[in-house]
Amino acid sequence: MEEKHLRTTVLLEALPYIRKFYGQTMVIKCGGKLLDNERLKENFAQDIVLLKFVGIKPVVIHGGGPQVTQLMERLGKKVEFEGGLRKTDKETLDIAEMVLGKINKDLVNLLHRLGGKAVGLSGKDGHMIKAKKIPGELGLVGEIEKVDTGLLEILEKEGFIPVISPLGVDEDGQTLNINADEVAGKIAASIKALKLIYLTDIPGIFADPSNPSTLISTLNSQDAEKLLEEGKIKGGMIPKVKASLRALKEGVEKVHIINGLLPHSLLLEIFTDKGIGTEIVH
Amino acid sequence: MEEKHLRTTVLLEALPYIRKFYGQTMVIKCGGKLLDNERLKENFAQDIVLLKFVGIKPVVIHGGGPQVTQLMERLGKKVEFEGGLRKTDKETLDIAEMVLGKINKDLVNLLHRLGGKAVGLSGKDGHMIKAKKIPGELGLVGEIEKVDTGLLEILEKEGFIPVISPLGVDEDGQTLNINADEVAGKIAASIKALKLIYLTDIPGIFADPSNPSTLISTLNSQDAEKLLEEGKIKGGMIPKVKASLRALKEGVEKVHIINGLLPHSLLLEIFTDKGIGTEIVH
Amino acid sequence: MEEKHLRTTVLLEALPYIRKFYGQTMVIKCGGKLLDNERLKENFAQDIVLLKFVGIKPVVIHGGGPQVTQLMERLGKKVEFEGGLRKTDKETLDIAEMVLGKINKDLVNLLHRLGGKAVGLSGKDGHMIKAKKIPGELGLVGEIEKVDTGLLEILEKEGFIPVISPLGVDEDGQTLNINADEVAGKIAASIKALKLIYLTDIPGIFADPSNPSTLISTLNSQDAEKLLEEGKIKGGMIPKVKASLRALKEGVEKVHIINGLLPHSLLLEIFTDKGIGTEIVH
Amino acid sequence: MEEKHLRTTVLLEALPYIRKFYGQTMVIKCGGKLLDNERLKENFAQDIVLLKFVGIKPVVIHGGGPQVTQLMERLGKKVEFEGGLRKTDKETLDIAEMVLGKINKDLVNLLHRLGGKAVGLSGKDGHMIKAKKIPGELGLVGEIEKVDTGLLEILEKEGFIPVISPLGVDEDGQTLNINADEVAGKIAASIKALKLIYLTDIPGIFADPSNPSTLISTLNSQDAEKLLEEGKIKGGMIPKVKASLRALKEGVEKVHIINGLLPHSLLLEIFTDKGIGTEIVH
Amino acid sequence: MEEKHLRTTVLLEALPYIRKFYGQTMVIKCGGKLLDNERLKENFAQDIVLLKFVGIKPVVIHGGGPQVTQLMERLGKKVEFEGGLRKTDKETLDIAEMVLGKINKDLVNLLHRLGGKAVGLSGKDGHMIKAKKIPGELGLVGEIEKVDTGLLEILEKEGFIPVISPLGVDEDGQTLNINADEVAGKIAASIKALKLIYLTDIPGIFADPSNPSTLISTLNSQDAEKLLEEGKIKGGMIPKVKASLRALKEGVEKVHIINGLLPHSLLLEIFTDKGIGTEIVH
Amino acid sequence: MEEKHLRTTVLLEALPYIRKFYGQTMVIKCGGKLLDNERLKENFAQDIVLLKFVGIKPVVIHGGGPQVTQLMERLGKKVEFEGGLRKTDKETLDIAEMVLGKINKDLVNLLHRLGGKAVGLSGKDGHMIKAKKIPGELGLVGEIEKVDTGLLEILEKEGFIPVISPLGVDEDGQTLNINADEVAGKIAASIKALKLIYLTDIPGIFADPSNPSTLISTLNSQDAEKLLEEGKIKGGMIPKVKASLRALKEGVEKVHIINGLLPHSLLLEIFTDKGIGTEIVH
Repeated sequence: MEEKHLRTTVLLEALPYIRKFYGQTMVIKCGGKLLDNERLKENFAQDIVLLKFVGIKPVVIHGGGPQVTQLMERLGKKVEFEGGLRKTDKETLDIAEMVLGKINKDLVNLLHRLGGKAVGLSGKDGHMIKAKKIPGELGLVGEIEKVDTGLLEILEKEGFIPVISPLGVDEDGQTLNINADEVAGKIAASIKALKLIYLTDIPGIFADPSNPSTLISTLNSQDAEKLLEEGKIKGGMIPKVKASLRALKEGVEKVHIINGLLPHSLLLEIFTDKGIGTEIVH
Repeated sequence: MEEKHLRTTVLLEALPYIRKFYGQTMVIKCGGKLLDNERLKENFAQDIVLLKFVGIKPVVIHGGGPQVTQLMERLGKKVEFEGGLRKTDKETLDIAEMVLGKINKDLVNLLHRLGGKAVGLSGKDGHMIKAKKIPGELGLVGEIEKVDTGLLEILEKEGFIPVISPLGVDEDGQTLNINADEVAGKIAASIKALKLIYLTDIPGIFADPSNPSTLISTLNSQDAEKLLEEGKIKGGMIPKVKASLRALKEGVEKVHIINGLLPHSLLLEIFTDKGIGTEIVH
Repeated sequence: MEEKHLRTTVLLEALPYIRKFYGQTMVIKCGGKLLDNERLKENFAQDIVLLKFVGIKPVVIHGGGPQVTQLMERLGKKVEFEGGLRKTDKETLDIAEMVLGKINKDLVNLLHRLGGKAVGLSGKDGHMIKAKKIPGELGLVGEIEKVDTGLLEILEKEGFIPVISPLGVDEDGQTLNINADEVAGKIAASIKALKLIYLTDIPGIFADPSNPSTLISTLNSQDAEKLLEEGKIKGGMIPKVKASLRALKEGVEKVHIINGLLPHSLLLEIFTDKGIGTEIVH
Repeated sequence: MEEKHLRTTVLLEALPYIRKFYGQTMVIKCGGKLLDNERLKENFAQDIVLLKFVGIKPVVIHGGGPQVTQLMERLGKKVEFEGGLRKTDKETLDIAEMVLGKINKDLVNLLHRLGGKAVGLSGKDGHMIKAKKIPGELGLVGEIEKVDTGLLEILEKEGFIPVISPLGVDEDGQTLNINADEVAGKIAASIKALKLIYLTDIPGIFADPSNPSTLISTLNSQDAEKLLEEGKIKGGMIPKVKASLRALKEGVEKVHIINGLLPHSLLLEIFTDKGIGTEIVH
Repeated sequence: MEEKHLRTTVLLEALPYIRKFYGQTMVIKCGGKLLDNERLKENFAQDIVLLKFVGIKPVVIHGGGPQVTQLMERLGKKVEFEGGLRKTDKETLDIAEMVLGKINKDLVNLLHRLGGKAVGLSGKDGHMIKAKKIPGELGLVGEIEKVDTGLLEILEKEGFIPVISPLGVDEDGQTLNINADEVAGKIAASIKALKLIYLTDIPGIFADPSNPSTLISTLNSQDAEKLLEEGKIKGGMIPKVKASLRALKEGVEKVHIINGLLPHSLLLEIFTDKGIGTEIVH
Repeated sequence: MEEKHLRTTVLLEALPYIRKFYGQTMVIKCGGKLLDNERLKENFAQDIVLLKFVGIKPVVIHGGGPQVTQLMERLGKKVEFEGGLRKTDKETLDIAEMVLGKINKDLVNLLHRLGGKAVGLSGKDGHMIKAKKIPGELGLVGEIEKVDTGLLEILEKEGFIPVISPLGVDEDGQTLNINADEVAGKIAASIKALKLIYLTDIPGIFADPSNPSTLISTLNSQDAEKLLEEGKIKGGMIPKVKASLRALKEGVEKVHIINGLLPHSLLLEIFTDKGIGTEIVH
């Protein structure tokens, strides 16, 4: 009896959130490191399918950095980064495309196995992501100029979960490697998502990164901008925060940066009162 | 942490059921006695709204027997039953219509308050329930000849929960009082519902009604028919079982008779493995 | 031969009106007193069905004052009015809801018998009428804040005639009794009706209510406002004229106040040149 | 008062017919002789527009025999008939097409002036009427093989009244002159019309054509066939009756042959109890 | 092999034009003189059908001047022009309507024979072309006031090629003869055509009409206006250029005046790089 | 002038084919070897885009054998075939997925650059290709059980060209490598394609493979079956012919096996009279 009571209580406590988010789009970015762990990947896919069934429209962006590095090394390629972005020559790009493509379709497959319907896309499909090369020495790395959401809208309308690799094309049709955090932010803004959620491997943003007790639970745009300027945001968190600020400015209501190592943190964030990790609001 | 874990576990355990029932119609009949209790009524309405938000299409049929009797007594009318059906003269019918109409719109209002969208109908609206008078001394009491589901389909498509009073019209336009269990069964069959669920004030069907430990959890059509013939099914359970058998024969997959006095028994039945009460299958 | 000639003449003389009103919405309010007379009620329903078949979209609002009073008296409740509005305690509201619900579904049934398709609603269905309590001693009596026309539009599109009881809900979900004339006016404005027509039991507005030869056939908004201020408009005509003025201001083209005691006065008003009763224009 | 009473009575007496025919298609053929009289043509067009506005979908087929003969004579062509059909050489066909085209667009224009929306077609438009040459000496005269109703359905759906000239094309694209009565019958059957109505210049079919008191008001298929065999049906009535019999066999419910010289006979036929002229039923 | 190579080359060279014009509307006016030549008429119809199949939406306007003159002469009517426009009394208008109607439906038939789907219209159908009489002595000659494109849009959506005769109606329903070049220009502007193309019997506009080597291949609006003012544009070219200037001002992108005597000049203009004849741009 | 004449002639000669194939689906399989040649790949993509623009709906299946072998060798994996199918262990499958994914998205990109709209899929997307493991020693190699065409239909309706990698999933969600010729055949049958076209690196089927002058231009099912039985069909041609026979049996009208080394052989096959390569009919 007790257990039954608990179950219905949990379901009913989720109701206000289900109601509030019904029919809304959420863009969720999952880092490559998390996808390398079978259990976390399966947790993540379960959460996405649940979101879909309670009326939320998830759009998934995935990374694949560690996996790309791994194949490069196996093939004897030198791996170099500059400012957090991978130096990408023609061969590196080929490797990245292959690896991301595989991660992408694997995730699609997993979502199906768990009862969802998904389609795996890169920014090349439907020429969805128009980009231009970043000036400098990075090689075939781009920044986004425009997202064409036509294909996403069709797939959403038909009940598919779009799963997107971070690749774009420039106006000559040259494929470009793009930071997945930026892709998530731009797509969230273009498709008028309610939320943009980054699943990463740390608990969120810290006032003092060296002090785990300084996790910031809510941050507004100005404060985030200040932290950036002051250099308090570091490494892989930089593109996340930059992309978040742009997305908020372009209409996304809230950004969440949460710990993907915590099982089902996505559900906890969406269906409980307090939330976890750091949220950034306008 | 523990509690968080539990929450996500409950949500994820519901996923297979959500997936299985997504887009399916369920006809749920709630007896008048349960609706007389404010807390149970609110529980029931919460459950219905939750079903709606996780993609199930509930159609609600309500009774109102005790409430009709009460107003009849206040107005000095004599209350008579025959074979479980109320003897209904013109004035009794007027009273029943008034009382059922009020219960109906109150339930509609409650569903809205909890975040749903509902429309209250009787079998007269869109001439949904065509009936004919039952021969004999019962007066203006009918049995259903045909259900026109056009209006229900429109409302379902537009996201409304239909809430239905058990009244019909004969071919001359005469209103007739109809047993709510029969209405639920016929509508379930006509609208091709997956499940027909009776929320009542007892735990289900007993092999030996005098012995509470003899609750039958699953019953097939033949056995149910036999119990009926043997007179082991009594009172208000008779029309429920008769309507169930007809509904199963006309394509409904499963019928559940469950204890509405148990809070949120509807959710427990739909979202847990073992179910509660008695289920009848073809 | 002569008679045949006449028939075709009448039909053809109606053609310009049919053409003019084709596809237009008209909100028609019929008072409770008229609905107490079987012949007048049937006349009224016939007219509504004819309107529907010649391409007009009627929306019906009904009253029920006398019938409510009658049941209150039978149940031994004291009946009190203040400023033309009924003092409404919890029990009175229950009685009003029951009585209005019955009148409503009876009218729906009658429209069906005459070949129409109708659905009976109160302001609770689809939370159509949002109201707030009128400050003071009236009790559970409201004035309208907002009409949500979504449900009406769906029903109109699908060919149903909506029949509406004058009840609303406040933001806490409390049901409120609302003057039916006000409901008609607000709905006419919200649904962008071409005409708002009050069927009442007097011939229209009189310059001198004590002198039957002073019926005013056309009145503009200013003059109507002046008559109101000068106290020349009395009793039940006050809410009608107030609601008319608001409806005209919010875009309804014309309001008609006509004598429902005259058989088929609705058809005469709509399909003949001169019209009857009093019309109010902006 | 009296006159008012009469008006509403006529409108209400039409209601059952309006209801019965609502949404139904009627194919109406109007002979060339009637269209030569300005008053009758206008009467006819008024009736068609009224039908449209009360929810009937009229499809108009027109003739033009006298007008073709007239232009042929002006141009010095010899006019010859054989078995009621015009001998049609290339030049005669050119003249017929020109004359029919003008009558067609004039009727379209008139329907618009009276408030309708119409489109003028010949059997060439959308290659609607596929025909083959009748063997023998008639020249470019055809009989229908197939009607493609696609274009008619589009126009009906969009609210246009199709007005059709009796011309077809054979499989080589050769235009052929076709008897308008046959065209009306074939189109009625193809578009699943409820009624096929011939407006002609005599009162109907007579048991004894020489005796005006022998007008037959209802005729079944067998009897009509017998009259044909016995040679009791003569001249221009022959193709009408033949086309009627085929149309009835292919699913048209009723055929009416009525006197178009009588003003508004179309309305009388459709909206009164007894009807006029001769009706043929299966 | 060589020939094969050539074929694919031609098809592939057309691809950029096919892509560019895909889904675009082009209004093409073909003069009566060209339609008098069977071979040119067939060439023209082939080109139109090809345009349709490669995704362009052609709207055809045709003239018929020589054919009207011919029938007038046969019927002994005096033919008079004033300022390039035909003096049009009632009888002349009747003749023009008959002749244009025949040309119109012949062209429809030809398009079908070549695999297209077409519908022949005049400005009377759907009251598409609203005009008013030109003041002066011309008689029943009009200038366009408004084009109602509703019918055209329906036909385009359903895959039909509209073929239009240059006739309009004034507000009293009087038919008026209208210059076909003006009709083409107005329809092009109203339906937001990308191109307006005049197929005529001369190569284009000449700087010096007496010197064939002075053909102007591109002209902008101002220069065209200057040529008009200086009287360098003469005869039938005047209404073409005037209509072109108006069409360009109202949003048409380009006007082409090309030589219809050259076989398939329409295809050459649309699918080759240099184009032929004279193009006028804003 | 001559050249212009030629151009229009070629375009017009293509018209009957364009007309005949308008709106039809064609499944086109392009082998991995051809896609390794930049010029042939671009030719192929141009042809596909042209097909799309003239109203044909192409579905592209691609191979990638040589490219898979190449990466396997670079990674030091042993390459083994058995009966024309690649032995596929887990790592081989990973490599195949990566390589096929890259070829797939490159082709999508190229189609876009040439003006088309494309989406790259594998059989995992929308769980389109359900397969089961082939018994034996091949490892993760499957044969198709069922094609779910839902996603393809959505993409076709929205104007996208689907580009498909030959991978499927079994009922446990295990990815399986599938022969691309089989994929093409099954998809052609499932989507009710008019034609199935194999672009390969030889001219077609030879009666005597050792004698180039024995190319068979048309072959019926029985004869093809006989050639198979007699062992006259060898190597990579075996799965093509087997898949063709199945596709023909399941409703595809014609299969073409043509030489993809010949530039634009696809256009030649579709838009010329004689065709090239070998066609197989039922």
